[in-house]
Amino acid sequence: MQYLKNREVATEGDLVELASTKSNSYVFVINKGSVQQTHRGVVNHDDLIGKKWGSEITSHKGSQFFLFQPGIFSIHSTTKRNTQIMYPKDIGFVIMKMNIGPGCRIIEAGTGSGGLTQVLAFLVGEEGHIYSYEIRKEMQDLAKRNLSRIGLLDRVTFNNSDIKEGFLEEDVDAIFLDVPNPYDYLSQSSDSLKAGGFFGCLLPTTNQVIKILIALRRSNFAFTDVCETFLRYYQAEENKFRPTDRMVAHTGYLIFSRRVLLQIHESQKQND
Amino acid sequence: MQYLKNREVATEGDLVELASTKSNSYVFVINKGSVQQTHRGVVNHDDLIGKKWGSEITSHKGSQFFLFQPGIFSIHSTTKRNTQIMYPKDIGFVIMKMNIGPGCRIIEAGTGSGGLTQVLAFLVGEEGHIYSYEIRKEMQDLAKRNLSRIGLLDRVTFNNSDIKEGFLEEDVDAIFLDVPNPYDYLSQSSDSLKAGGFFGCLLPTTNQVIKILIALRRSNFAFTDVCETFLRYYQAEENKFRPTDRMVAHTGYLIFSRRVLLQIHESQKQND
Amino acid sequence: MQYLKNREVATEGDLVELASTKSNSYVFVINKGSVQQTHRGVVNHDDLIGKKWGSEITSHKGSQFFLFQPGIFSIHSTTKRNTQIMYPKDIGFVIMKMNIGPGCRIIEAGTGSGGLTQVLAFLVGEEGHIYSYEIRKEMQDLAKRNLSRIGLLDRVTFNNSDIKEGFLEEDVDAIFLDVPNPYDYLSQSSDSLKAGGFFGCLLPTTNQVIKILIALRRSNFAFTDVCETFLRYYQAEENKFRPTDRMVAHTGYLIFSRRVLLQIHESQKQND
Amino acid sequence: MQYLKNREVATEGDLVELASTKSNSYVFVINKGSVQQTHRGVVNHDDLIGKKWGSEITSHKGSQFFLFQPGIFSIHSTTKRNTQIMYPKDIGFVIMKMNIGPGCRIIEAGTGSGGLTQVLAFLVGEEGHIYSYEIRKEMQDLAKRNLSRIGLLDRVTFNNSDIKEGFLEEDVDAIFLDVPNPYDYLSQSSDSLKAGGFFGCLLPTTNQVIKILIALRRSNFAFTDVCETFLRYYQAEENKFRPTDRMVAHTGYLIFSRRVLLQIHESQKQND
Repeated sequence: MQYLKNREVATEGDLVELASTKSNSYVFVINKGSVQQTHRGVVNHDDLIGKKWGSEITSHKGSQFFLFQPGIFSIHSTTKRNTQIMYPKDIGFVIMKMNIGPGCRIIEAGTGSGGLTQVLAFLVGEEGHIYSYEIRKEMQDLAKRNLSRIGLLDRVTFNNSDIKEGFLEEDVDAIFLDVPNPYDYLSQSSDSLKAGGFFGCLLPTTNQVIKILIALRRSNFAFTDVCETFLRYYQAEENKFRPTDRMVAHTGYLIFSRRVLLQIHESQKQND
Repeated sequence: MQYLKNREVATEGDLVELASTKSNSYVFVINKGSVQQTHRGVVNHDDLIGKKWGSEITSHKGSQFFLFQPGIFSIHSTTKRNTQIMYPKDIGFVIMKMNIGPGCRIIEAGTGSGGLTQVLAFLVGEEGHIYSYEIRKEMQDLAKRNLSRIGLLDRVTFNNSDIKEGFLEEDVDAIFLDVPNPYDYLSQSSDSLKAGGFFGCLLPTTNQVIKILIALRRSNFAFTDVCETFLRYYQAEENKFRPTDRMVAHTGYLIFSRRVLLQIHESQKQND
Repeated sequence: MQYLKNREVATEGDLVELASTKSNSYVFVINKGSVQQTHRGVVNHDDLIGKKWGSEITSHKGSQFFLFQPGIFSIHSTTKRNTQIMYPKDIGFVIMKMNIGPGCRIIEAGTGSGGLTQVLAFLVGEEGHIYSYEIRKEMQDLAKRNLSRIGLLDRVTFNNSDIKEGFLEEDVDAIFLDVPNPYDYLSQSSDSLKAGGFFGCLLPTTNQVIKILIALRRSNFAFTDVCETFLRYYQAEENKFRPTDRMVAHTGYLIFSRRVLLQIHESQKQND
Repeated sequence: MQYLKNREVATEGDLVELASTKSNSYVFVINKGSVQQTHRGVVNHDDLIGKKWGSEITSHKGSQFFLFQPGIFSIHSTTKRNTQIMYPKDIGFVIMKMNIGPGCRIIEAGTGSGGLTQVLAFLVGEEGHIYSYEIRKEMQDLAKRNLSRIGLLDRVTFNNSDIKEGFLEEDVDAIFLDVPNPYDYLSQSSDSLKAGGFFGCLLPTTNQVIKILIALRRSNFAFTDVCETFLRYYQAEENKFRPTDRMVAHTGYLIFSRRVLLQIHESQKQND
């Protein structure tokens, strides 16, 4: 990723963030001769080349911006999307619970707009790999562009197929299913997940959670946890320090489980 | 880290987790001839050697356990500690906001028991590095043992000094201060953080947050965010799916900011 | 209720609260010659007689207390109980949503320990009335003692019967069911609730909520709302103002609905 | 209040609610010959007269409504306002904590649009009374109209004065201050509140809470509690039972305290 190269200044081809304290942020690649439209005036790409990271930039309307190498948070929040993408509050907890880090091999489905894919690809590093499944081709094409934008396309193998047919990989470290009916794919997940590996999914309704709890109990999974995360922002004002008025109340229930090797007979288990 | 080596079976020297659905988990290193005490009977280390990950293990009292390679979540929650350690819900969000990933160079203070240090060391991979400062030597010694346990000691440089004197490193990607008075070390942080880099801290009281908001405004920082994360666990029971009765209501306010290069005069800024 | 008589001083027979900033509160009736045991020493009832409300009282061990006329909150929280009682956070919202106030006639089931009964009896005043049903006689006997303690026994008609048999009253303003299976009693509720009246219940699990949603849709009810309330306490310290560490994460889901007069055929509706 | 008279049908002069499951509710007084505009067509008042409560009503566009006697919740939420009004979730908890009920005499300031005033006037019944102070005359005029609408104007004494000058009443049961600087009026509150009486206020920022904590400590108040309430609504759908997407994250911090009679010298106390 560009921003981990510790050069001091922005150059042609760099992924950059123009951040404003008063409006949106813009994340884009510097192309000589191009201009970036903002809600507060135009910025010429050429004016960014050679500027130090963290510098003030002024638009043609005189508005102040700062030039940054975008972090994964900004990249994620400016992801081009035609689907709902997972929230950082949930992704952060998934990382912790599912042990996502350098070297991991991870299956995800569906790819969607690639919001989660980007973060996973960032975290598994050069030694890790993501296998991302999506049945809708046009979605996956968007995700590819999003991964390409941040230079991590080669860390992801995209697969445009129905996961009902199973996953091509074996012994992956973790599988995350962001699909409406993950309870229909536990057998496929069990086949591709290493013993002891981490399974996770995100479901918006309690009816869906109840279904996956039943399905997990009947499968080779154990240590199932269900939780929700919440994020509450505050006004960062020293004289009026208070929570913001409104917040996201619900993104989904996070379900985590681990594949285990059971000695007892499956049929016995189902009679529990 | 041991558990990223995709061997199928546990061997002498492996860090393992004995997990029970009915009691605590135990994380330890397999030593031939040793025994592991649990609340539900004794397990011989020798009986674990050669067992597949995910296998059922039975204690001498007949209690069921499963043998896992521990994830960072289990490692973190079983950290030997003589201080409060950061919660996974907060660490997960810090990772996202501060762009923690493979190759990052990060300063943290104080080390404490090394709870956060372990997660950071895991995530930055072999190319990254953690510089951890702590004024209390006995704390840092514990942290070193915790890092040694998971085989990541070489990714951390421990520094037993007062951060009032500043940090030895320059141009790090991120600085996280888990100390009671981070507002006293912004100048030191600014000196060691690369321009555009990420600053973060965790503070339990609103009085402290108000102080850091004042201090950040007067320093070379901008884009300050303050937030809280919450985690709500559910009973994972298909017929009685409901939230658990009690939860952690407060761990601390998370404050994030970025170092910027300001053109305007410091003195002017303080007169805002 | 005694404490609404605006006498200035405590007298024999008054319900009083001995409140301590450092330990529990004690709510009891003053009886000449009696003593009140506390965790911080003994207080003679005789020493309270003639004391102004709000006065400092010292126990034989020198501990400080204050003498109050107890509010409904203290009465509720010191209720003798052998069941879980509803939390004030939930009762407060029930009052608002179900229009509980002076003159209301309300059915409640089950009585339980009378925690909610006390608050309802307080709020409906002398013109209102509570009809409280409970199948377990020993529970209701405890509730009677609790109502007697606060002098509101005559505002409540206790009924020791199975609500499967229906309620004796007609055209009540509101019905609140704190029973595990309220979905089994909607027909009985509809028979006793005035048209347009308020129905409410409290259920701990999502499975139960799903059941009542189905049952309400099939009955003469509409405008169903489901919600949860949360209460977060803070340390009331000016230099360390912060949330308390832990909180109650779940008491139950509150369900509210209104009885309507439908023109369409019941059989049609069930085919929706 | 009209809706406590248990007539079965709506008549001229009744306050009614036209409720729709698909759009807003409308609360108004029936006047012969008038029409009610809604987002889903017009309803003639004459068509409501003689209709049973809970009946279906059809607008000229064929949309379905139900005719109700409005509860205090609907009245509150349809209050004409030119100020922010307190939320039901907060009012419900204030009722519990401050022992608001039949017969209570309560001071409130400022009146604002009368949102809280209406609920208090409803709950104190015919024997109780509300003394409501507001410095801005035009606000109070609106509040008077709101109270008049629900027929409770005679339970409220409106006072258009600066509370810096103090309150005219003595020995009231409770005082609630919904003003930005309640810490400036503790002496006035103490003068008018009966010993042992309940003090409450609502403040949006932590800075204000810190100020009132200091002020309360220096005054004749004790047993100070600070808390926040939250309300989370759910989609009331049996097949998609889940929380709603967004919620109100912050209305304000609730502060409660009680007036006590202190034996120690005021001057000593301030040196704490």
